[in-house]
Amino acid sequence: MRTRAAVAFQAGKPLEVTEVELDGPREGEVLVEIKATGICHTDEFTLSGADPEGLFPAILGHEGAGVVVEVGPGVKSVKPGDHVIPLYTPECRECDYCLNPKTNLCQSIRTTQGQGLMPDGTSRFRTLDGDPILHYMGCSTFSNYTVLPEIAVAKIREDAPFDKVCYIGCGVTTGVGAVVNTAKAEPGCRAVVFGLGGIGLNVIQGLRMIGADQIVGVDLNPSKKAMAERFGMTDFVNPSEVEGDLVPYLVNLTKGGADYSFDCTGNVKVMRTALECAHKGWGESIIIGVAPAGAEISTRPFQLVTGRTWKGTAFGGARGRTDVPKIVEWYMQGKIEIDPLITHTLSLDEINKGFDLMHSGESIRSVVLY
Amino acid sequence: MRTRAAVAFQAGKPLEVTEVELDGPREGEVLVEIKATGICHTDEFTLSGADPEGLFPAILGHEGAGVVVEVGPGVKSVKPGDHVIPLYTPECRECDYCLNPKTNLCQSIRTTQGQGLMPDGTSRFRTLDGDPILHYMGCSTFSNYTVLPEIAVAKIREDAPFDKVCYIGCGVTTGVGAVVNTAKAEPGCRAVVFGLGGIGLNVIQGLRMIGADQIVGVDLNPSKKAMAERFGMTDFVNPSEVEGDLVPYLVNLTKGGADYSFDCTGNVKVMRTALECAHKGWGESIIIGVAPAGAEISTRPFQLVTGRTWKGTAFGGARGRTDVPKIVEWYMQGKIEIDPLITHTLSLDEINKGFDLMHSGESIRSVVLY
Repeated sequence: MRTRAAVAFQAGKPLEVTEVELDGPREGEVLVEIKATGICHTDEFTLSGADPEGLFPAILGHEGAGVVVEVGPGVKSVKPGDHVIPLYTPECRECDYCLNPKTNLCQSIRTTQGQGLMPDGTSRFRTLDGDPILHYMGCSTFSNYTVLPEIAVAKIREDAPFDKVCYIGCGVTTGVGAVVNTAKAEPGCRAVVFGLGGIGLNVIQGLRMIGADQIVGVDLNPSKKAMAERFGMTDFVNPSEVEGDLVPYLVNLTKGGADYSFDCTGNVKVMRTALECAHKGWGESIIIGVAPAGAEISTRPFQLVTGRTWKGTAFGGARGRTDVPKIVEWYMQGKIEIDPLITHTLSLDEINKGFDLMHSGESIRSVVLY
Repeated sequence: MRTRAAVAFQAGKPLEVTEVELDGPREGEVLVEIKATGICHTDEFTLSGADPEGLFPAILGHEGAGVVVEVGPGVKSVKPGDHVIPLYTPECRECDYCLNPKTNLCQSIRTTQGQGLMPDGTSRFRTLDGDPILHYMGCSTFSNYTVLPEIAVAKIREDAPFDKVCYIGCGVTTGVGAVVNTAKAEPGCRAVVFGLGGIGLNVIQGLRMIGADQIVGVDLNPSKKAMAERFGMTDFVNPSEVEGDLVPYLVNLTKGGADYSFDCTGNVKVMRTALECAHKGWGESIIIGVAPAGAEISTRPFQLVTGRTWKGTAFGGARGRTDVPKIVEWYMQGKIEIDPLITHTLSLDEINKGFDLMHSGESIRSVVLY
């Protein structure tokens, strides 16, 4: 079949919106009509050429929502008409990782996914001239129709609006999940969140949902304050306004240190501050942000020996098929908000504008509606 | 009263065995006759002058066992005749730390303990000339009689031999506790232990006790192998015999990485190796060794984002009054061994020989018998 898609032919160049050829789903695969997709920093990271593992030409996009159109042989868990969110972290429920309750990092199709291919080692996308186009993060939601492994779609309730819940495909789950799955933060805790962009705001609302007592937001940009407060931030700290070292300031503000701290900046120096402002004896610091290639975190081991724990999280520790439908429920029940985070809605033809809005800092999240 | 003690009058000088004056126990304190004490690297660290927090003159020693002789007003949990192990990490069961199940770092008497004083801010020790002598780590087990806060003694069964269970006062609990309390390692796990000295051997036997499937020991000194095997090591790795990088070698040996890795070296480079050989998705690395002042650990945050956790432990995460008696039980039941680790037994007059044996690497643990 033919479908419209925004193709990344080359690093550093705008996406090209064009028709492409898409093969139907093979065994264990599903064809999904994408109804909406968010534009995430990770797409930008790859498109810019900074991602050392980026491959081209490819159809980017990994934060979508849509409807199953057709299923390949052997597919049992979804059927045509089901509403789904594509999962860049799949959940096969069979590999050593899926069977270990301590991780969400299903490894069953990791190698081919990293190569921009379906699990059988081939691509379903081609140009109209027949040249191969690669998949991206196993999702390629910048195409109106895409093929996904069955284990890489989460079935969600049908009354959930595509243009909002698509954000659960990455940003919402990453932030809320870091609180719920990785930190397993408990009611009454005190937390510090570094970086009040889309991920930070979702961490904040995750903390509000689970009943945190204090939610400190840290950002150099004071214009982030209002939205963060709307999402549950109780204290705003602008490091440029703090005299002296930020760590003792935050330890004092949280009456001894954060039970949980979250880095949503990708800055390794901030990651150190996040660890060191965690409470002696039990504070946990969770790295969410992606650091530049080669950058390293460091601290004195004494920080750990006196009881702090340093962790990271990917996709918010969520097992997609199991946990993404729950997060959709939380949105539909009003436990978390998404609507104010979707600051811009675009057509596919306008998709490059979404990247511009990200660069200029005007958007929290831009969503493309098909 | 007068008691014999080995006094550290000055950093870098041998201990002086002499008589000192000891005041009786005040409110909430107990007088203990120390029957045996181990000589630990931490005593050596302070005596050498390398410990920036070391204070002199002081009576060192923090790994003892003895009998309660007298109790001060208000003491309820022990009585004269009770066998006890002094605790450098007390357990008041009342402070914010004791009431938080995530930590063992009771803070109730931390400030005065760090100043070499009893909780009321004074010392019980004096020279015969009346000059004050400081306590050390709240224990001062290098004195035949010592005074301790009630919250800093663990009551143990009376048939436990002092010359063996004194080692539970620090080394055994630190190693076994790191496995049981901090890692909470489970049967069937694979572990890597860096450094096969006294702490490493206790980590190894902790892993054997809880039913680990694979216990890899890493040490540059091949003479450590035999004892480590006796304590449960299943694989020995000498890094000097490994071609190429140690991390992939260990990941391969453990079929994907260690579920738990333990640094017992204090070397920050080894700490990094320990983290990076932990299993993607769920591996935990635990720092036990004490690093030189100012030394820093570092790694790429990707190591944490892909599911590894970096932790530390002090006193094996044990709550002393609760957990030390359990470890004594494990020893008496044969679940852990101590006897082969006590390589030398000395009189108090020979105590400086114990430090020499440590320096030369001849001893695992020297114990002074009063």
